Amino acid sequence: MFTKVLVANRGEIAVRVIRACRDLGIISVAVYSEADKESLHAQIADEAYCIGPAQPQESYLNINNIIETALGCGAQAIHPGYGFLSENPEFVRACVENGLAFIGPSEQSMRLLGDKVQARALAKEAGVPLAEGSDGVVCSLEEAGEWAQKIGYPVMLKASAGGGGKGIRVAERPEQLEEAYQSASGEAIANFGDGRLYIEKYIAQPRHIEVQILADQAGNTIHLYDRECSIQRRHQKLIEEAPSAFLSDGQRQKMCACAVALAQRAGYTSAGTVEFLVDDQQNFYFCEMNTRIQVEHGISEEITGLDLVAWQLRIAAGEQLDFVQKDVPMLGHAIECRINAEDAEFRPRPGTIQSMHLAGGIGVRVDTAIYQGYHIPPFYDSMICKLMTFGRDRRQASARMKRALSEMLFEGIVTNTDRQLSVLLSDAFERADFNTNSMEDGVFDVSNDA
Amino acid sequence: MFTKVLVANRGEIAVRVIRACRDLGIISVAVYSEADKESLHAQIADEAYCIGPAQPQESYLNINNIIETALGCGAQAIHPGYGFLSENPEFVRACVENGLAFIGPSEQSMRLLGDKVQARALAKEAGVPLAEGSDGVVCSLEEAGEWAQKIGYPVMLKASAGGGGKGIRVAERPEQLEEAYQSASGEAIANFGDGRLYIEKYIAQPRHIEVQILADQAGNTIHLYDRECSIQRRHQKLIEEAPSAFLSDGQRQKMCACAVALAQRAGYTSAGTVEFLVDDQQNFYFCEMNTRIQVEHGISEEITGLDLVAWQLRIAAGEQLDFVQKDVPMLGHAIECRINAEDAEFRPRPGTIQSMHLAGGIGVRVDTAIYQGYHIPPFYDSMICKLMTFGRDRRQASARMKRALSEMLFEGIVTNTDRQLSVLLSDAFERADFNTNSMEDGVFDVSNDA
Repeated sequence: MFTKVLVANRGEIAVRVIRACRDLGIISVAVYSEADKESLHAQIADEAYCIGPAQPQESYLNINNIIETALGCGAQAIHPGYGFLSENPEFVRACVENGLAFIGPSEQSMRLLGDKVQARALAKEAGVPLAEGSDGVVCSLEEAGEWAQKIGYPVMLKASAGGGGKGIRVAERPEQLEEAYQSASGEAIANFGDGRLYIEKYIAQPRHIEVQILADQAGNTIHLYDRECSIQRRHQKLIEEAPSAFLSDGQRQKMCACAVALAQRAGYTSAGTVEFLVDDQQNFYFCEMNTRIQVEHGISEEITGLDLVAWQLRIAAGEQLDFVQKDVPMLGHAIECRINAEDAEFRPRPGTIQSMHLAGGIGVRVDTAIYQGYHIPPFYDSMICKLMTFGRDRRQASARMKRALSEMLFEGIVTNTDRQLSVLLSDAFERADFNTNSMEDGVFDVSNDA
Repeated sequence: MFTKVLVANRGEIAVRVIRACRDLGIISVAVYSEADKESLHAQIADEAYCIGPAQPQESYLNINNIIETALGCGAQAIHPGYGFLSENPEFVRACVENGLAFIGPSEQSMRLLGDKVQARALAKEAGVPLAEGSDGVVCSLEEAGEWAQKIGYPVMLKASAGGGGKGIRVAERPEQLEEAYQSASGEAIANFGDGRLYIEKYIAQPRHIEVQILADQAGNTIHLYDRECSIQRRHQKLIEEAPSAFLSDGQRQKMCACAVALAQRAGYTSAGTVEFLVDDQQNFYFCEMNTRIQVEHGISEEITGLDLVAWQLRIAAGEQLDFVQKDVPMLGHAIECRINAEDAEFRPRPGTIQSMHLAGGIGVRVDTAIYQGYHIPPFYDSMICKLMTFGRDRRQASARMKRALSEMLFEGIVTNTDRQLSVLLSDAFERADFNTNSMEDGVFDVSNDA
């Protein structure tokens, strides 16, 4: 096992990885930007080094500074967390070239799955259901039009290099195709430096359900069941639960088997997530694979009792999974609410936490990097806390989440706890009757509960 | 189910019960002394009423005030928590006479088990192993001498009305008997108004292992396995774990079966704990039954996934257990550290919490009623927080506890977190090689780790 690991991230995920290191007896090294000098991750790590100014490009995205810091302090491995460099194959390569283990998949798997067209082809080979679409990139507006005609409108134009909801447009009718094409392509060039697009049948009002995967270097690949993340706004997840309350056990099994098949086909190692869109008949279609630990990984840990981040570390060090699929239990139901420092209009509102009180007690897990007196810097994500609850069933997990949300107290900053509570209290949430559009459609608004 | 429940307690256990009420959709009513006006339990309950001055006798032990408050606000039931009135049969009677459900056992069971001599007789009938001793109270020093001669020294003199380690003395040789007799009897009169004693063979360097029981009104009685609470100082538990790392599975099964048999024999309902002393050969001897929820109940919840306080409420409302013994899983291992506001000499040190940071993350549960700015009043117990960790095995639970203890931060008050951490780090703890004398014998001291 590694004796020293550098965590190339900040905030709650850096704290999460540091905790996993501590649990395994590994010395943890934090890196921080000048704006994060007072951050909890920098304080609780065994060692901490400043790697540059506040701007991500100059610190958390600065490959050279991070590699140099790792080499300088004698770390043997780097955990990238999520976001920042976590899905950058150049970073994986830089780690490996410098003799550092990257705690995640290989550069090759990451490249393969990061290219949406290649990932789609791979999924097809693995027998994973795909929404009807072009077999590769479309080279022109004309070709897009031909595919759209063949598939039938509405269609989606998606950036091959895409991710995070960027470079995606819907054309409901032929006359919308040109604008959608130009717009998606332009956004893809701006965001990924690659304007290539492919085309897919548009799934109306889909649910977002994903499968958590864990794979070791010996080829053992298991899943930790599914998570439903349909409660989102502009592709930003707000509330997740595990397992999905919508999916039948039969469809769950099929979806999980597909996810494992894809991961194996890609030669995937470490923790990863296969995302699906699901229609109202429970038909599911491959969306993409995220080649990193995700924000919402904790609820899969709660329902299985497995420590995903500890396993990432162990797998990167060459350990094999010491259990098989049938030993992965489904212990109950878990829910996560992302607590963001934002106002009622979803605008980030950084500030100083004058006082706070976090929820606790039975069935409650809090993952956060904030503390009383902490100044939330304006440079990064507005998520300040992950509040998770676990229960024997959805009803108990939900009751505990309502209780926990009502105990959260912040002074000095504005958060979304009230809105999260109103979602939990809504009829739509209780009936698990929602899709990825529901938040924007106002389905969870109190006025719709009559 | 009840619609409104009054919680006749304070601090973390009051918060614990309020949370269980909230999870079940029950309106919670807090009561508080004048010293506890700013207490968290009074703040988070749906309703809160002052019941008298700081002194426990005038508030938390004031049966009349509590009953009147319950009747006045329309509560249908009272949860007594632990300590205070929780084991007072007069309080149970007062509740019942006023049409209020007491959330705990019947007055009769409580009286029966509260009398140590009667409890011993009951245990004998139920086939529970007992340390050799007098069959009832000894009426004189002479009779005590005869029993001691018969049993063989060392012997223990124990108050029939005893509890909490009071009214107990050891006589190692005949010449110590008189002083032990007078001293135990005097302490029993002072504490319980009842000086009657019985005599028992003294178990040298015992472990304290107890079994958690849950029984409904239909006669279904199950156990939630055992907890080891040997790490104590002057009969005050400091660290508990579930299950015991010392007990073989065979002895565990026998002990749990004995506990269930005793509870059934006593017609026991609600949550309760059967305590045993265990010698170094794993022979176990009935000690006493605690007829209430205990401080350390949470670790049994962690290893089984059951919510004991919620079940107390449901059972008191007439619900039956909806599972049987074989459905109670043993999911892993849990440890609790009691965080006390006390100095290195174990002296309570009340004060104002200027700032604090509580542990969090995977496998960590915090049950507490403190908050930043809270003034710990000098009138009550010095325990301010229960820190629990859960893991798949003892090693993981222990690693997480070390991590969690190292994250706890208090300013303005003195706590025992450092001492708790040093116990966790000790060789004796790691080997689970300790008994109830180990703390006072300095077994966990760093200097003994060489």
